[in-house]
Amino acid sequence: MRYELFYWPTIQGRGEFIRLALEEAAADYTDVARERGRGMGEAAMMKVWNDPKFDRPPFAPPFLRAGKLVIAQTANILQYLGPRLGLVPKAEATRLWAHQLQLTIADFVVEVHDTHHPVGSGLYYHDQKPEALRRAAWFTAQRAPQFLLYFERLLQRSGGDYVLGRRFSYVDLSLFQIVAGMRYGFPNLAARHESKTPRLVALHDRIAQRANIAAYLASERRIPFNEDGIFRRYPELDK
Amino acid sequence: MRYELFYWPTIQGRGEFIRLALEEAAADYTDVARERGRGMGEAAMMKVWNDPKFDRPPFAPPFLRAGKLVIAQTANILQYLGPRLGLVPKAEATRLWAHQLQLTIADFVVEVHDTHHPVGSGLYYHDQKPEALRRAAWFTAQRAPQFLLYFERLLQRSGGDYVLGRRFSYVDLSLFQIVAGMRYGFPNLAARHESKTPRLVALHDRIAQRANIAAYLASERRIPFNEDGIFRRYPELDK
Repeated sequence: MRYELFYWPTIQGRGEFIRLALEEAAADYTDVARERGRGMGEAAMMKVWNDPKFDRPPFAPPFLRAGKLVIAQTANILQYLGPRLGLVPKAEATRLWAHQLQLTIADFVVEVHDTHHPVGSGLYYHDQKPEALRRAAWFTAQRAPQFLLYFERLLQRSGGDYVLGRRFSYVDLSLFQIVAGMRYGFPNLAARHESKTPRLVALHDRIAQRANIAAYLASERRIPFNEDGIFRRYPELDK
Repeated sequence: MRYELFYWPTIQGRGEFIRLALEEAAADYTDVARERGRGMGEAAMMKVWNDPKFDRPPFAPPFLRAGKLVIAQTANILQYLGPRLGLVPKAEATRLWAHQLQLTIADFVVEVHDTHHPVGSGLYYHDQKPEALRRAAWFTAQRAPQFLLYFERLLQRSGGDYVLGRRFSYVDLSLFQIVAGMRYGFPNLAARHESKTPRLVALHDRIAQRANIAAYLASERRIPFNEDGIFRRYPELDK
């Protein structure tokens, strides 16, 4: 199966969780909005997104085309890809648990995003800076530690090197991205807290060394973190 | 199967989307934190939530116990219950689509919540009122219409009375709750916009008349909307 990923071409954002899964599995995929040529580029994404004849339009990117299917919502896409790419065990109970964790990661991602956009995503950061300072203070003091310690606790209880135990899964890839993102966007917070989440940090390092992930991270396909994405480095928000 | 729902006992909140599904299907369930007696009440919920021996703890309520399974994340619970309660068609593509819509509804619910808690859920509303006024202005002008018109468009394209087409599903129950919640929390916005979403309003009315839902809404099991839940009536936020 050839997969087509549709996502904003200049940021990691939510699409990155899907890119990591496709890269780890060495899947045959096209990152449509980043390609040039006929039927490619951001215009091609907008066309699928806004097709008035399509009865199952996504609300927002990322979305994935797989044959006749168009699937949106990051966690839903990963739930679909997981078994097909060998990135999740077979048992239904384990898949539900993996998906539950992915949805919890999605909640965390919203909170990261809202540190710089607490008023609304249609305004620039500099137009909502006072609100962002308050929101980020709450995030760094309370919410980020709460989420990160939760994931650490899961790794402690999993009975293996991975969050599901001895079996690697797409959730581990997403946890790698969370650690990498926090290091970029909140280096002070990360420096303060990483000693309290040694298993999470070790997981990050283990994932970064997987052959396909290491190759991906070293390639031009990995878009650098930047101040248009979800994890942004605004020092004033990282006290 | 006897289901046990664990959620805050005094609000509709996210648990309401699950209560509606269980009620529609006349499922055998206990709303644990709302019951009294041995093994019941909020303390029983906290015990399962914080059990140090449990290797798959939820991050937050709601969660559902079904035999040996404990499942969290509202949309994940509904995805699990859907086939078991006859509330979603069998085809995988349709189930993925239903789940995608439920996740989009979950995103909308976060935005509703953040109108009154833009800084953080650990602070009272009155401690973040200036931020709430700005966030709510963006919500009522941009985001709420965007989501509601999206759902209207889906109903227009579905080819039936329900969001999946001719087949009723748990997603319709959640859309009912969205319309009911907007009428409670944002009556001015609802009054301005309902003429633009006639199909969504008609769906709400159709769901309210289903025998089991009508009985539930008239019962004491339906907790009234209030200012501790997600949909809150703060007139200053509904301009």
